Amino acid sequence: MTTLTNTRTVRIEWGDCDPAGIIFYPRYFEIFDASTSALFERTLGMTKYKFLKAYNFAGYPLVDTRARFLKPTRFGDDVTVESAISFGRSSFTVQHRLSLDGELAVECTEKRVWVARDPADPGRIRSQPIPEPVLAKFNA
Amino acid sequence: MTTLTNTRTVRIEWGDCDPAGIIFYPRYFEIFDASTSALFERTLGMTKYKFLKAYNFAGYPLVDTRARFLKPTRFGDDVTVESAISFGRSSFTVQHRLSLDGELAVECTEKRVWVARDPADPGRIRSQPIPEPVLAKFNA
Amino acid sequence: MTTLTNTRTVRIEWGDCDPAGIIFYPRYFEIFDASTSALFERTLGMTKYKFLKAYNFAGYPLVDTRARFLKPTRFGDDVTVESAISFGRSSFTVQHRLSLDGELAVECTEKRVWVARDPADPGRIRSQPIPEPVLAKFNA
Amino acid sequence: MTTLTNTRTVRIEWGDCDPAGIIFYPRYFEIFDASTSALFERTLGMTKYKFLKAYNFAGYPLVDTRARFLKPTRFGDDVTVESAISFGRSSFTVQHRLSLDGELAVECTEKRVWVARDPADPGRIRSQPIPEPVLAKFNA
Repeated sequence: MTTLTNTRTVRIEWGDCDPAGIIFYPRYFEIFDASTSALFERTLGMTKYKFLKAYNFAGYPLVDTRARFLKPTRFGDDVTVESAISFGRSSFTVQHRLSLDGELAVECTEKRVWVARDPADPGRIRSQPIPEPVLAKFNA
Repeated sequence: MTTLTNTRTVRIEWGDCDPAGIIFYPRYFEIFDASTSALFERTLGMTKYKFLKAYNFAGYPLVDTRARFLKPTRFGDDVTVESAISFGRSSFTVQHRLSLDGELAVECTEKRVWVARDPADPGRIRSQPIPEPVLAKFNA
Repeated sequence: MTTLTNTRTVRIEWGDCDPAGIIFYPRYFEIFDASTSALFERTLGMTKYKFLKAYNFAGYPLVDTRARFLKPTRFGDDVTVESAISFGRSSFTVQHRLSLDGELAVECTEKRVWVARDPADPGRIRSQPIPEPVLAKFNA
Repeated sequence: MTTLTNTRTVRIEWGDCDPAGIIFYPRYFEIFDASTSALFERTLGMTKYKFLKAYNFAGYPLVDTRARFLKPTRFGDDVTVESAISFGRSSFTVQHRLSLDGELAVECTEKRVWVARDPADPGRIRSQPIPEPVLAKFNA
């Protein structure tokens, strides 16, 4: 099992927040999705647009996620997201820890599956093993 | 413990979907948040804008959520969301079952807490017991 | 020149609103985009997912839009959107009028272009004439 | 009339894009809204959260916007947004130029109004003159 981490900073914007003045929680999942992509981009050395083509797949949709919200964040906050990945055969798990001023605000675990378009029906997607060259990059 | 359910239909829009052609999963959490509000609105007989004032509180932010994604949905799909609520003292749990053509696509459990503005610092929120009149409406 | 109109009702949700308690204006453009699709869906008698396939095109991205915001709306408001379309050769214009309780809140004009994937490079899109069968449906 | 500019870089994310593979255009307005705030934050030397309190106002909602979309952008693109502001008495205009690899992709003009909560009805907002200290910061 391989584990690799990436850390990035994200600004919470006015438009991410709701009338209570704090972040509208679905925005956290947008942040986590982009954090997972940032981890792949850094490791594979190219943007998602390019690595989808390079490894000929359609993405890594979620199959399961769990999140705990410990303290709210609001516009103007610059939060830190640490993301750690571990791989299975055709799926992988990412744990995100989002913190503000060193205090954990949200933790989230997501399980995702590697999918490609079904050659028999390009409108459908199906899971397939994560390519060895991808795993090799994470193991390097 | 009180349980009440509400069912509504939601159209998945083009703008809810990502380059894989399926829904971008944070949009599901927007749907679930609106489904929880729809359940309260139906039971309390007024919009969220009005019931926040009527019961003098600031909302019911999430503290924990878990979701499983069983099959993808895409733009043009009219999905059905069944939401069932059960109450604790200052928190409540909602289970959402989102289905397409009778097949379960996503199930989600969310735990939320009833909060009011802190009189000592209106920029802060804190949990408080769910008002009896609210529980009475759900029990009626 | 053909003009056809469609009217639909949209609920402004909590998550559409910002810390000022009113709608975060980019959400209006999501509403207008869905309103344009609703107009096509009604006229063509199928969902966007299906008519993109039936007429073999990639969508109708915006080239120009202008919007005036006359009065704010907020969560719990059920707004009415009237959309009127007029066609050019490979582009069309839609005028949206969004009102609340009979009062105009937003008016928006959008110019969109009919595009298909470039056969020489499927990653690119290019404009093409709106198919006659589509125009015929609007003229019927 | 005062004019000041700010430039920032924004990553277009997977979740910002639609099934055509390009950005879903309402996301541009989210980018522009954050760009306007970034301009104020830089000039006033504090976050929006803080300057709303410091100058005791409720925000600067849009009254009018116009945008032209010249070329599409897609996930993985790092776009540059140049924003230039000019002030009226209780309103201001911001021009945004969003470019990719030195080529203009979107240009947008927005007119916004400075608003405060109505003391007689805190649920309502109304325009008021832009405070002198704010103008002084932009003129400095």
